[in-house]
Amino acid sequence: MNANRFGQILTLTTFGESHGPALGAVIGGCPAGVAWDQELLLKWLERRRPGHSEWVSARKEADVPEVLSGVFEGKTLGTPIAVLIRNQDARSKDYDSLQPGQRTGHADDLWRDKFSHSDPRGGGRSSGRETVARVIGASVAQMIAKHLAPEISVTGFAKQIGPFELSEDEFQTALEKSQHSMWWADQYSGRFPQAEKSKALSEFLAEAKSEGKSYGGEAQIVVRGLPGGLGQPVFHKLKSDLAAAVLGVGASFSFVLGDELASQSEGSQFHSQSSPVTYGGIRGGISTGEPIQFKVGFKPTSSVLDLAKAGRHDPCIVPRAIPVLEAMVWLVLVDHLLWQRLDRI
Amino acid sequence: MNANRFGQILTLTTFGESHGPALGAVIGGCPAGVAWDQELLLKWLERRRPGHSEWVSARKEADVPEVLSGVFEGKTLGTPIAVLIRNQDARSKDYDSLQPGQRTGHADDLWRDKFSHSDPRGGGRSSGRETVARVIGASVAQMIAKHLAPEISVTGFAKQIGPFELSEDEFQTALEKSQHSMWWADQYSGRFPQAEKSKALSEFLAEAKSEGKSYGGEAQIVVRGLPGGLGQPVFHKLKSDLAAAVLGVGASFSFVLGDELASQSEGSQFHSQSSPVTYGGIRGGISTGEPIQFKVGFKPTSSVLDLAKAGRHDPCIVPRAIPVLEAMVWLVLVDHLLWQRLDRI
Amino acid sequence: MNANRFGQILTLTTFGESHGPALGAVIGGCPAGVAWDQELLLKWLERRRPGHSEWVSARKEADVPEVLSGVFEGKTLGTPIAVLIRNQDARSKDYDSLQPGQRTGHADDLWRDKFSHSDPRGGGRSSGRETVARVIGASVAQMIAKHLAPEISVTGFAKQIGPFELSEDEFQTALEKSQHSMWWADQYSGRFPQAEKSKALSEFLAEAKSEGKSYGGEAQIVVRGLPGGLGQPVFHKLKSDLAAAVLGVGASFSFVLGDELASQSEGSQFHSQSSPVTYGGIRGGISTGEPIQFKVGFKPTSSVLDLAKAGRHDPCIVPRAIPVLEAMVWLVLVDHLLWQRLDRI
Amino acid sequence: MNANRFGQILTLTTFGESHGPALGAVIGGCPAGVAWDQELLLKWLERRRPGHSEWVSARKEADVPEVLSGVFEGKTLGTPIAVLIRNQDARSKDYDSLQPGQRTGHADDLWRDKFSHSDPRGGGRSSGRETVARVIGASVAQMIAKHLAPEISVTGFAKQIGPFELSEDEFQTALEKSQHSMWWADQYSGRFPQAEKSKALSEFLAEAKSEGKSYGGEAQIVVRGLPGGLGQPVFHKLKSDLAAAVLGVGASFSFVLGDELASQSEGSQFHSQSSPVTYGGIRGGISTGEPIQFKVGFKPTSSVLDLAKAGRHDPCIVPRAIPVLEAMVWLVLVDHLLWQRLDRI
Repeated sequence: MNANRFGQILTLTTFGESHGPALGAVIGGCPAGVAWDQELLLKWLERRRPGHSEWVSARKEADVPEVLSGVFEGKTLGTPIAVLIRNQDARSKDYDSLQPGQRTGHADDLWRDKFSHSDPRGGGRSSGRETVARVIGASVAQMIAKHLAPEISVTGFAKQIGPFELSEDEFQTALEKSQHSMWWADQYSGRFPQAEKSKALSEFLAEAKSEGKSYGGEAQIVVRGLPGGLGQPVFHKLKSDLAAAVLGVGASFSFVLGDELASQSEGSQFHSQSSPVTYGGIRGGISTGEPIQFKVGFKPTSSVLDLAKAGRHDPCIVPRAIPVLEAMVWLVLVDHLLWQRLDRI
Repeated sequence: MNANRFGQILTLTTFGESHGPALGAVIGGCPAGVAWDQELLLKWLERRRPGHSEWVSARKEADVPEVLSGVFEGKTLGTPIAVLIRNQDARSKDYDSLQPGQRTGHADDLWRDKFSHSDPRGGGRSSGRETVARVIGASVAQMIAKHLAPEISVTGFAKQIGPFELSEDEFQTALEKSQHSMWWADQYSGRFPQAEKSKALSEFLAEAKSEGKSYGGEAQIVVRGLPGGLGQPVFHKLKSDLAAAVLGVGASFSFVLGDELASQSEGSQFHSQSSPVTYGGIRGGISTGEPIQFKVGFKPTSSVLDLAKAGRHDPCIVPRAIPVLEAMVWLVLVDHLLWQRLDRI
Repeated sequence: MNANRFGQILTLTTFGESHGPALGAVIGGCPAGVAWDQELLLKWLERRRPGHSEWVSARKEADVPEVLSGVFEGKTLGTPIAVLIRNQDARSKDYDSLQPGQRTGHADDLWRDKFSHSDPRGGGRSSGRETVARVIGASVAQMIAKHLAPEISVTGFAKQIGPFELSEDEFQTALEKSQHSMWWADQYSGRFPQAEKSKALSEFLAEAKSEGKSYGGEAQIVVRGLPGGLGQPVFHKLKSDLAAAVLGVGASFSFVLGDELASQSEGSQFHSQSSPVTYGGIRGGISTGEPIQFKVGFKPTSSVLDLAKAGRHDPCIVPRAIPVLEAMVWLVLVDHLLWQRLDRI
Repeated sequence: MNANRFGQILTLTTFGESHGPALGAVIGGCPAGVAWDQELLLKWLERRRPGHSEWVSARKEADVPEVLSGVFEGKTLGTPIAVLIRNQDARSKDYDSLQPGQRTGHADDLWRDKFSHSDPRGGGRSSGRETVARVIGASVAQMIAKHLAPEISVTGFAKQIGPFELSEDEFQTALEKSQHSMWWADQYSGRFPQAEKSKALSEFLAEAKSEGKSYGGEAQIVVRGLPGGLGQPVFHKLKSDLAAAVLGVGASFSFVLGDELASQSEGSQFHSQSSPVTYGGIRGGISTGEPIQFKVGFKPTSSVLDLAKAGRHDPCIVPRAIPVLEAMVWLVLVDHLLWQRLDRI
């Protein structure tokens, strides 16, 4: 079954438990002849890596990728691309002191019910650690896109974290800035793209961490440069696939395409608006060629104070989730870019 | 490819254009021996049928289903179940007077770009007409569920339509009432389950229809009686599959699982709350056994006044969309119920 | 699940029981813009139809196809193509006189074990009647091929039927003739392409029919004009997909690619032979551009004399199976032709 | 796409080039709670390993498996099982002296055409080296079968190699012996289960190797203890899936189920025979519960003398192919065993 496989043409199969020997990604359906960009892969892994800030989970995951197959002399072979990441700093002993049931809010108990076994080592497959395979997949997707539609950019940034929120002006400024540099928000603490608030947020989260508190938030995603015509009419509408993709990220609970006020709008007014934002860049399930915008809501991370004291606790998941969201979006977009090759005779 | 197929084990393949000869559903993966409930099928078709109110699109679609295969002597055979619905009142002439491009907001132009052809007859596959196949699929899913988990109920109702919105009290009352009767909201005009407001809404929408106006809104879905343990850890999380399912319905733009305030909550508080609503009944991507709640946002329908005059225009899509949303939810739930058979040795 | 779906990109989903109301084919993944050739569809149905000879099963299946979707103004829309065939001459009463277990050699008892139900009406899905959906699919595949690789031809003929067998010379003559006219063997009784033997065979089979006897045989398939490079390296080798396709036809039991003497050859000799026949046109699982040749063995049809007396009995399945084999081959080839679009960046 | 994935419920995804860093298998769909049998895995790897005889290709592949995921405390977790094998003795220099085109009969040129690249290192994915992933998958399949149907056995042996062939008596003796010990043929040189001939064969092949000659042959497979009811009615007939599986092994060219004389039999005689062998244990595409027998033909391996001199040449592929054939059969059988869980409500 497809429980661990994502995509229709460009497929990402992931494996590995968070405290097992390794995690891996197998990318199928990548055409032959794609220029391999190792730097891009490393950049994606670096972006996803926790530990670059005082308040994020302190695991120093030196995620060294080993490309096991599918690439030869700088190009993809058209065969499956397997990339392996060893778990080097598993520290499962941090969890050893936890009694069963103590990781409240985690899904461990549910997995025990489902599969009749107990793997207390940090969540197994449902751990955030698994997402390392997603950014590996995304880096390959982006390599493909450089051939097919090099103008595509996917930008994510925090829109709200706990009590911190971008004002409408700050949001518009962020949108404007993201036009020029896809990953510009990485420079801000918490990927919250407003300098003063970002600093205050950093202190706020450091304190939250020390107190074992956690907060929800919202991430904003903007896709630019996407050709029109991507998506299928009925069950693989672009919006369907994007929603499935981002809801496949841990702790996410909502997906809102375009302007959330759309539900409260009157139509003739709504449809006469020139702003493509209102539509979110997708109509009838397919891309219009205009920018696609959506936001994704996250609930507070669920970790007890004891765990927090051991230094393995993120006070808000949004900053770390952003590259993962972007990764899932790349996978969806490039899957549909390849799918488009089959549209017409 | 899978563009017109939904589901992993219980699959729904749909075909048919809105103004072609017929629409159809082929359900694969239905086990043998399921008791066939023709009344249930007819009830689903009736619930989806427009025309039961003065303000909805006036098409009198006498959706007479013909079961072509997969059922014999009152039971399913374990073979594909094909059900056909003839298009009897296509009235494509209503659309004949429209010039290309006039159906503003519709995706016709996008499909023309994508597929290099023009089928002006009411949207083809992206028409709401296609959803008749979804409720056929749902009726089969519900027949299966009666064997596997008969206590499951899926209830949808309108939470907001244009300027009309349930108050918090009215919402809680609606939740309470829906416990006792799954489809109780069907008795209210617009499936807006508050008697006085529902009457006013009916007049409001009738006027909107005459004026060629349309409105967005929100639908609320509640699932009860679902066993725990449904969903997969990574890419077929229950929330992922539900989001993809409901975003596959036309004009939908958002999916919010549980309490939308989760993004603004502090965690220890959030996770100590006893209400299962907060979580939305899903943790780590799998069902907890508690009720699942989510809401789906819809943008205003996109139709020009001329079309509205011809009587083929819904001033708000939410009332009609509710059975379709419920249908998609049934398909997801029963797919995962069957999938669960494969979880353990 | 995929039990009733064939193909990866160009997919054929079939439904319908042999004595139910109808049989149907839903073709997915057909690109938009393919010229629709209704004559070709009718020709395929005619070729598959039994009843054109005195000794074949006397069912007069007036297979009138109704194209329900996916085609508009002479071109495919890029949406699913559904084609329906009504069962008009079901005559299930012929089978009514049979007691359970009497259709020895049929799989009815096995299906009863598997699915816990009993549909005695002529085999249900495992009946030869289902193959009408295969030739519908093939006709669409061939329409696609006319755009992508119009030079492809797929020729089948009987190589051996009971005691009748083509001599080596006759076989070479048949191969030669088939170069000029793809379906030239249809002119021969039993599709056995040697005039004198064919006449004798016709009498032989008529007598076999009256005596309730049945015979096995071998069909030969030749593919010409196929581009090189079709097939995948590991699990969808062209030979794998062809073997699965032809073994999916009832009563078939063997698939031999190229020269069956290959297993008894010495290599340097074998590989130095210039004849492409030896290889069968496939190396390493992919097409070489040379003709592909293979043969398919069939066991005797399994029908008791009582059934034979009722006139519903084929003394040899090979003549009727040939168009079905060809159909399956077209589906495989065109699936891989479309797949080839994804090979390179 | 699924080019490198096998199976519907129990899936095997393989990756790795023959001269790249590693080969790997990712097994999806394995239920949780299966007892892990490391010895069985090692035994399968050992059986597949070349080098245990003087005349087989001399690569000393110390295939040390590393289980990267999906197993914990002796049981499967229900998550993907990834197993890695490093390539330790790649010796690609042996191939360096070959000019392009020299590996006559190999598919290298075809892959170059298909994918526009040239990986001369021993065949890449189409190398026999890839089959290490198949036996890994088979070992997991067999572990599952021990829970579901422990009486299943899959036995393969050589029936013919070049001029050596089992007589009918020897063949019947082999069948009889294989009842008692599944892998008993491994004790014979060439897996040719007749002591005297086996010794002569060994000398014959050693000489063939020194002379750069190669031979075709036939492998026989017998499945015992399989429950009835496995297989699907139309496109995943058990015979279809078995044929696809074994034709997915390099150099195979034929699949014959049951008695190859079936094509020349008269039916009433054929069907009255009590021997289950005649049917091959499959009717209407599904297992009858009787033994399944089929044979697989292989053409001579294609290697020029120069390569042979370098010691990298098998004079006949059949002995090495037998465990791979068995492996593919296990994957098919267990896939259908799990599929059977979905047959009835």
